[in-house]
Amino acid sequence: MADSSASPSVKQTLQGYHQLVSADLDRTVRFWLDHSVDDQCGGFFSCLEADGTVYDCTKYSWPMCRQVWMLARLYQEVDRFHQPHVLEAASKGGEFILQHVQEASSCRCYLSLTREGRPLKLQRTIFSEAFFVMAVSELYRVTRHARYKERADATMAKIIHWVRVDSTELGFSVAPPTHVSSLSVPMILLMLIGQMETVEPARTAEFSALGDWCVQQISRHVVDRGANRGGLAVMENVGQDGGLLPGCSGRLMNPGHAIEAGWFLLERAAKTDSESLAALALDIVSSSFRRGWDSRHGGLLSFIDLEDRPPTQLEWDMKMWWPHNEAMIAFLMAYKHTKDDGYLDKFGQVLDYSVKHFVDPEHGEWFGYLSREGVVKINAKGGQWKGFFHVPRALMMCEAMLQELLQTC
Amino acid sequence: MADSSASPSVKQTLQGYHQLVSADLDRTVRFWLDHSVDDQCGGFFSCLEADGTVYDCTKYSWPMCRQVWMLARLYQEVDRFHQPHVLEAASKGGEFILQHVQEASSCRCYLSLTREGRPLKLQRTIFSEAFFVMAVSELYRVTRHARYKERADATMAKIIHWVRVDSTELGFSVAPPTHVSSLSVPMILLMLIGQMETVEPARTAEFSALGDWCVQQISRHVVDRGANRGGLAVMENVGQDGGLLPGCSGRLMNPGHAIEAGWFLLERAAKTDSESLAALALDIVSSSFRRGWDSRHGGLLSFIDLEDRPPTQLEWDMKMWWPHNEAMIAFLMAYKHTKDDGYLDKFGQVLDYSVKHFVDPEHGEWFGYLSREGVVKINAKGGQWKGFFHVPRALMMCEAMLQELLQTC
Repeated sequence: MADSSASPSVKQTLQGYHQLVSADLDRTVRFWLDHSVDDQCGGFFSCLEADGTVYDCTKYSWPMCRQVWMLARLYQEVDRFHQPHVLEAASKGGEFILQHVQEASSCRCYLSLTREGRPLKLQRTIFSEAFFVMAVSELYRVTRHARYKERADATMAKIIHWVRVDSTELGFSVAPPTHVSSLSVPMILLMLIGQMETVEPARTAEFSALGDWCVQQISRHVVDRGANRGGLAVMENVGQDGGLLPGCSGRLMNPGHAIEAGWFLLERAAKTDSESLAALALDIVSSSFRRGWDSRHGGLLSFIDLEDRPPTQLEWDMKMWWPHNEAMIAFLMAYKHTKDDGYLDKFGQVLDYSVKHFVDPEHGEWFGYLSREGVVKINAKGGQWKGFFHVPRALMMCEAMLQELLQTC
Repeated sequence: MADSSASPSVKQTLQGYHQLVSADLDRTVRFWLDHSVDDQCGGFFSCLEADGTVYDCTKYSWPMCRQVWMLARLYQEVDRFHQPHVLEAASKGGEFILQHVQEASSCRCYLSLTREGRPLKLQRTIFSEAFFVMAVSELYRVTRHARYKERADATMAKIIHWVRVDSTELGFSVAPPTHVSSLSVPMILLMLIGQMETVEPARTAEFSALGDWCVQQISRHVVDRGANRGGLAVMENVGQDGGLLPGCSGRLMNPGHAIEAGWFLLERAAKTDSESLAALALDIVSSSFRRGWDSRHGGLLSFIDLEDRPPTQLEWDMKMWWPHNEAMIAFLMAYKHTKDDGYLDKFGQVLDYSVKHFVDPEHGEWFGYLSREGVVKINAKGGQWKGFFHVPRALMMCEAMLQELLQTC
């Protein structure tokens, strides 16, 4: 009785989610294939209005490289996207980034370029290079063309060198007086290791020690505040030995980032068969969600000060799309790992907020930036930082997890 | 009859404004002298909570240099602040910036430093250097110590070189493919020229050609869209010949910045006795205010896209304190110049919004960042960019203009 009337069975719930997620993934892929491909100059536009109209032709390497990765991965892993036009879009994007995004001799990658591919900006970070590795290594996975592997390996080696040995080539103008560990660096490196292992499973042992180092580095950002002060807190910046740093940057939390770190660690825990790491990962996801969820208006806040002192990010209380994508992945992965219904409820809570506020069922893809109250503040689907990545990655991963779950329930 | 009953006379209105502005200036000066001075390490804190508590000890060169300038100018120009402790605070701040903010051999100035003065960040722009010149030249004006003049002159020469001859020393990593003129560069240079002329009036002729160049550069940012499309539009970025640039940055308007440019030009027009420049300046102020004022909630928007396409600044609809300070100066200066009551009404409109939303009568100084609806979003009085500058500069200038106006009415 209960299963078919008042409360739906878990299976029905999962089926409902699966249907919703698959339809959204279809719309999202269509939106970007229809509007982002630059047939004239190559590469992808990411500055797209709500209906897909291009509002700026500048090419940004983060969304471009991520789009190449995403298309190649959809081609490789999702049957209905294993189609020539998907691979063709990925490959054409790959040619543009090989030719224009990377300065081959230094392996440095520009942040932005003109429509034609002339460089505009170069950052003093490793992120453009990391997304470049994601893109070309996934293209290698699909095509097995040596030139992709060559670029991926050379750039990966440089990134490891910059992070662990010497960052001089990144061009910092001032040597930092104290060592600050930024959560994003071990996170991005762990993501790259996962990518390399997926592309060439035989190399897993090669990256094992580096993976452990990343896990250890990320763990240093996790501070236990005790049960009556919210439990674990994942700090964006800590000192060399993991201690809390003074000032705003030392009190800064980014709930979406912390939740993403949580599922990175949970994935790693499953791979390395570590239950203690899984427990930490689950705790990170839950406590970061508790800290980040806006009890007043719903949705995840963008930045929090650990001690409720003035936030310095003007957008701190805005609701951005990507933390909600990370939370969807994290809670479904947590549910898959534990079968604890509480995680499935949380997945439903995030999905429900997202469908009501971010999703555009008319044109596809999500809006990116809402006010604290949940009203669309920037009427666009993409920009310098938002491209074909967080939304389809979450939908693709959730679709796959829901399929697996449905097969076993 | 009319003067004393229903509507107050202009004189009464001006007296009311004068009283309000003077009281606010007193509170503001007290707030910063009480809370920002670092007696232990020298220099000024700018990260101050609503009640003045320091929430971050990082030293930021923009607010520090501006505070030195502001204190020295108040000491020099406002009788009730011509007090030893005001000069002492300015001089001590001056010692800190001489010792720590500038790398003397290159004249480059750091953007941020530790509490003790160790450098953290260096930007690829001329702004830290420009505020450094403001600070040390005003200290020279007050003290006539040669070492201040020496630093001011050397740095001013470097800035002119970087802007007009060769920017290599600023450390740009990528040569721009097309020349983009940013409104802030000629504006800041025009501000520096005004400062140099104030400090040493005998040098006015020396800066005359450079001043004309700045006016010409700023004028290139002014586009006439015609009466039915809002009249003049001041663009943040234009091409070398003043043409509209493609993309977001080419459509970007910053109403506060445009209004500030307006009063810079009006001041220049008065100095050079140019009625045509004054007419342009007045038109810039009025049209920028019309474009920037939020008819729905009041207050000035932070960023606008000329064609109402998606703004890229997440904070575009926030109400920030400083555009309101610039508008107060601009409208009162416009009224003083024309005696047109319309400008005085606008001054009153901006002052009224500011008193209701930004001013903190309890602790002094204004809040800096409101939501579009006018609610305080960041509960602080200062930060990396907000210090002892825009509020007291506007209050000091408006107090002086109101005094002048009251003497003649």
